[in-house]
Amino acid sequence: MTLPLPLFTGLSAFPLTPADVDGHVDAEALQRLLQRIVGSGARSIGLLGSTGTYMYLSRAERRRATEAAIESVGSRLPVIVGVGALRTDEAVAHARDAAAAGADALLLAPVSYTPLTQEEAFQHYQTVAAATDLPLCVYNNPSTTHFNFSQDLIGRLAALPTIQAVKMPLPGNGDFSGEIARLRRIVAPEFAIGYSGDWGAAEALLAGTDSFYSVAGGLFPRPMAALTRAAMAGDESGTARLDAMFSPLWELFKAHGSLRVMYAAANLMGLSSALPPRPLLPLGPDITAKVDAAIAPLRQA
Amino acid sequence: MTLPLPLFTGLSAFPLTPADVDGHVDAEALQRLLQRIVGSGARSIGLLGSTGTYMYLSRAERRRATEAAIESVGSRLPVIVGVGALRTDEAVAHARDAAAAGADALLLAPVSYTPLTQEEAFQHYQTVAAATDLPLCVYNNPSTTHFNFSQDLIGRLAALPTIQAVKMPLPGNGDFSGEIARLRRIVAPEFAIGYSGDWGAAEALLAGTDSFYSVAGGLFPRPMAALTRAAMAGDESGTARLDAMFSPLWELFKAHGSLRVMYAAANLMGLSSALPPRPLLPLGPDITAKVDAAIAPLRQA
Repeated sequence: MTLPLPLFTGLSAFPLTPADVDGHVDAEALQRLLQRIVGSGARSIGLLGSTGTYMYLSRAERRRATEAAIESVGSRLPVIVGVGALRTDEAVAHARDAAAAGADALLLAPVSYTPLTQEEAFQHYQTVAAATDLPLCVYNNPSTTHFNFSQDLIGRLAALPTIQAVKMPLPGNGDFSGEIARLRRIVAPEFAIGYSGDWGAAEALLAGTDSFYSVAGGLFPRPMAALTRAAMAGDESGTARLDAMFSPLWELFKAHGSLRVMYAAANLMGLSSALPPRPLLPLGPDITAKVDAAIAPLRQA
Repeated sequence: MTLPLPLFTGLSAFPLTPADVDGHVDAEALQRLLQRIVGSGARSIGLLGSTGTYMYLSRAERRRATEAAIESVGSRLPVIVGVGALRTDEAVAHARDAAAAGADALLLAPVSYTPLTQEEAFQHYQTVAAATDLPLCVYNNPSTTHFNFSQDLIGRLAALPTIQAVKMPLPGNGDFSGEIARLRRIVAPEFAIGYSGDWGAAEALLAGTDSFYSVAGGLFPRPMAALTRAAMAGDESGTARLDAMFSPLWELFKAHGSLRVMYAAANLMGLSSALPPRPLLPLGPDITAKVDAAIAPLRQA
């Protein structure tokens, strides 16, 4: 039996993409964040994910961010690059840019304005997947795209040659094992099934997901990698202990959105002075104080 | 008592923006569509609305479309231009471009990727509204933006100097009169309350909305203007007769999305050979045949 590619297993850490108010990427600040991930135990970097504000950056700035990341990380960790866009031709262009810059894999969400049909999403994926030789992960994130994948669509996508992984949202009913089993039945054994939604990491990994795509991993890669390792080894008490350390952060993620919380955390840690792209607003002082308290144990872990 | 601006009363007709597969606007085809609206009884043109695929067009192409529209329509009808964008600075740039091109008003939807808070939407509107002197209509369209305006937010926005109208989605409970009454209590008398969602036009207008923002009006402005006039005059039987003529089209809108149906109709009418922007797909031959049948009476009206 062939196993999922190493780049789609274990912890994938999703850093912010620090940028100024005009959307120009601060390559140095980005590289500082990436260097903290290298050697942490994370198995890949998820560049230009939702946390990396890909939808708020121009093509030129996405290319700059990708080049800066590859330059910084080299071959020490695979870099998975988000290439989603409203137009299919734009997503193809981003995919080609990422491949030209030396990315290891692509991440593609079905971003839409006019809601997409299942067939429209299929053809969008088919076109972008065929644009490069890079392995592609299907980014299933209805909280931002408002697109719901049918089981049938995931099966059709998993059969395309370069599509080798899916990043699922937390199941509404909390039944990870059931959902993973249903997905395993419709995909090849080497197809990787992963989850995102950080507060579900422990449960998803204990239930046997191949990978976890983590926002917190972008700033706290060591404890998040430790949680991932513990859970993948079936160590329930070790996992619970680490998850408890993250738990105040999870509550803030749920209340204020993980992106806003991560900007506040990066600012508090002196890693970046960047603000979220407007119209998104930085958190006020009261919530920022809560973020400060929540990250205190994580900064030392 | 001051009344709503004429440009935010009556029928606003929303044409497609014909473009090639690379997103280059076909200015001549757009002008053909606009000339059919002038003199039809429509009171304004809603350029670059959702039907005008604004979110799928670059800044340069939006500017070209706006310039082509103003050149074609002149002062014969006011042109309301959609300026929504994911970034606040981009929406500001679109607003300034529209003003420089001679637009009469702006239409702004709270487009998002990361879901927006009420306060983020408020500040986004405040910034874009302050960027020009043009009157601005709040585009409340949760089916594409997935943002839900609170009553409180609409009240705050209506108090800003240049914000003079709102384009509401059809109320979930069908209670137009109740919703209009609630909105009238929180806005100034000269603030215009309009609706969109074409199959609700008759009911919304009979219930006393100031304006209707219509997709079908972009291709069938004469019968849609007749429906609007009849309903605004309280002529229930005349309204019902016209609404019945549109009813097969409304069913297709609900089943396949008004945008896809309008592309098929424009192609059938020989007005444009443009296709919807990928990933959106043109309708197949079976549904196109149904569109052909549905528009037959409207083409002659």
